[in-house]
Amino acid sequence: MIRAEVMLAVWCVLGGLATLALAAEGKPAPSNVPGREFPKIFPDLGVTFRVKAPDAQKVQLAPRGDDNGLGRGPYDMQRDGGGTWSVLLPPVRPGFFYYELVIDGFRCNDPNSETFYGWAQETSGLEVPDPKLDFYDAKDVPHGEVRALWYHSKVTGQPRRAFVYTPPDYDRELGRRYPVLYLQHGAGESERAWSTQGRVSFILDNLLAARQALPMLVVMDNGYATRAGGGAQERTDRAQDFGDVVVTDLVPLVDSRYRTLADRTHRAIAGLSMGAMQALRVGLKHPDLFSAIGGFSGVERNFDPATSFDGALADAAKANAQWRLLWFGWGRQENPAGRMDFHEKLEKAGIRHVWFEVDGTHEWQVWRKHLHDFAQRLFRD
Amino acid sequence: MIRAEVMLAVWCVLGGLATLALAAEGKPAPSNVPGREFPKIFPDLGVTFRVKAPDAQKVQLAPRGDDNGLGRGPYDMQRDGGGTWSVLLPPVRPGFFYYELVIDGFRCNDPNSETFYGWAQETSGLEVPDPKLDFYDAKDVPHGEVRALWYHSKVTGQPRRAFVYTPPDYDRELGRRYPVLYLQHGAGESERAWSTQGRVSFILDNLLAARQALPMLVVMDNGYATRAGGGAQERTDRAQDFGDVVVTDLVPLVDSRYRTLADRTHRAIAGLSMGAMQALRVGLKHPDLFSAIGGFSGVERNFDPATSFDGALADAAKANAQWRLLWFGWGRQENPAGRMDFHEKLEKAGIRHVWFEVDGTHEWQVWRKHLHDFAQRLFRD
Repeated sequence: MIRAEVMLAVWCVLGGLATLALAAEGKPAPSNVPGREFPKIFPDLGVTFRVKAPDAQKVQLAPRGDDNGLGRGPYDMQRDGGGTWSVLLPPVRPGFFYYELVIDGFRCNDPNSETFYGWAQETSGLEVPDPKLDFYDAKDVPHGEVRALWYHSKVTGQPRRAFVYTPPDYDRELGRRYPVLYLQHGAGESERAWSTQGRVSFILDNLLAARQALPMLVVMDNGYATRAGGGAQERTDRAQDFGDVVVTDLVPLVDSRYRTLADRTHRAIAGLSMGAMQALRVGLKHPDLFSAIGGFSGVERNFDPATSFDGALADAAKANAQWRLLWFGWGRQENPAGRMDFHEKLEKAGIRHVWFEVDGTHEWQVWRKHLHDFAQRLFRD
Repeated sequence: MIRAEVMLAVWCVLGGLATLALAAEGKPAPSNVPGREFPKIFPDLGVTFRVKAPDAQKVQLAPRGDDNGLGRGPYDMQRDGGGTWSVLLPPVRPGFFYYELVIDGFRCNDPNSETFYGWAQETSGLEVPDPKLDFYDAKDVPHGEVRALWYHSKVTGQPRRAFVYTPPDYDRELGRRYPVLYLQHGAGESERAWSTQGRVSFILDNLLAARQALPMLVVMDNGYATRAGGGAQERTDRAQDFGDVVVTDLVPLVDSRYRTLADRTHRAIAGLSMGAMQALRVGLKHPDLFSAIGGFSGVERNFDPATSFDGALADAAKANAQWRLLWFGWGRQENPAGRMDFHEKLEKAGIRHVWFEVDGTHEWQVWRKHLHDFAQRLFRD
């Protein structure tokens, strides 16, 4: 009995010391604004969130979406005597995850966090470094640029902004022309998403430094577009209006403004989720413009090779001759409905494509991995 | 008596109609995220803020800072039966203003608003268009680019990001070299500030389209820098470490990477508030690198021409020969302490400079106007 109590005491002391050691080893998340200690990530990938709200009655942490790497939540935060509320999450998945605070029922951002446009508003996001991966980190390699380019859209009648990644040597190798990847975000996100949440420039910089991809431009526009004359507040994810922006505004703009290889052989279109649908529909409708398509976690539901996409894939031999690369990626823990279906139907129809699965759900870590593979295969002979 | 009541009734009805008409005319602020109706700006520049928080006990709107164009606040918002809280502010000043919501004492962002890095965190901001001004609007003119450029800093040992504005013809006029303005943000802001809050690209695009400024590059870096070996969490506004970044990292990077006119005659440094102090100190310390300095709402306190800046301005004749442009701007409603003092001491010492006052306080609308004038005078013979 005494021995048990001593053991318990020793265990508690050691546990306390271990906790202290862990606390000391914790690091501010890379997604924190400078100088903020919390959210703090521990070596086991446990995460502590902490905010001060002395007058609030209830404070919660709410990961956004059902398959968030932080778990489902919402998690009640515990108040200390000074009005500071905390919660320690058990080890989370590496990657990037949107979240909110809920202060007496009001959903808002964590003042400690950078914000990221997702869920159709500026949202807090937690970046959890993967101890085993660095392909999307900012390394000391030559860096390309991400250029914000405003233009007047003939389709929408409004100013729009696209981001354009140019590789490190773009401004030095002035005799060189480059292939172009058009790359789209998901629902509720914007043209900013791939260069912030997606780390597109670091992924490409690192691939280029290792000579694992060919130098290319990457053009990222906003997938929401409303034809001039549409309601001012109306936003649509219809591929049609966005497709018109791509064909009428964007491709001519990019080809006139940058040193592109301005033919279908050197043009690809890809996207994630809603952007995958847009890439498929716009790409397959315009084989004159594109020769490669990438769909990240987005497939055509109820796909029928004979009739879907206005029959663009009905003739497998023709499709195989026409498309240099059809690439589809998925996260193994995503809802599988429609996934194997799409892949199997393509297989059965004899349509050549890459099917690429990685661990993960409907999340940016999966799409970073998708881009990392897709980009290596692009524009190869 | 009856007449009075009838008149009152008519007045109320008309007043109600007028309110309805105004409400119908109100427009979502340009700083709202897409699709959000509130904050809504009325033709008289009254503004309604509205959020849903059914479980909150008290909701307030809090403009940040003492001389905010939205007034001082905080303003109590009124709850309706459905848990929606609103407040209508009387006409506000045109410009850009940081603000917060206070939900049961917790200060957080308005989910309806874009966020802007200010006050050392992501903060809501209200853009109130000036009916009389459009020099900073996105117009259908040729647009330059704002390029995000990551680099490895020798001074801090860390990756850093600079933004570089390149004029519309930069990628076409490949034989041309350009002068460079280094332009800094204020305390609590970041390298993003001038291209979002400051509208730098639209100001330059519009000036260039009207041939009111010479084509130039504008380089915007983060004013916070900590020498390698300093504490990881330490941030400093000391001009010294930032100055080392400018001299050791940034100027060589920009001159090697862009087609610059790489001499002091074609290099200027400017900034607002804290950035003005940095521009003055770094600029005056390095006449070998810079020939023009701009200070927007930031002056040296207790300025003594003989001794301040290590005596860089002690010899007026030498200073006048050395500096092509010393430009200082102020907002007339700013705290005047030290302002006339600085200006008058420069005058008295015979140091040639431009002193430029506009209406306004310590705010972005003033700094946009400052840049608009300063840029027109830069790099002229």
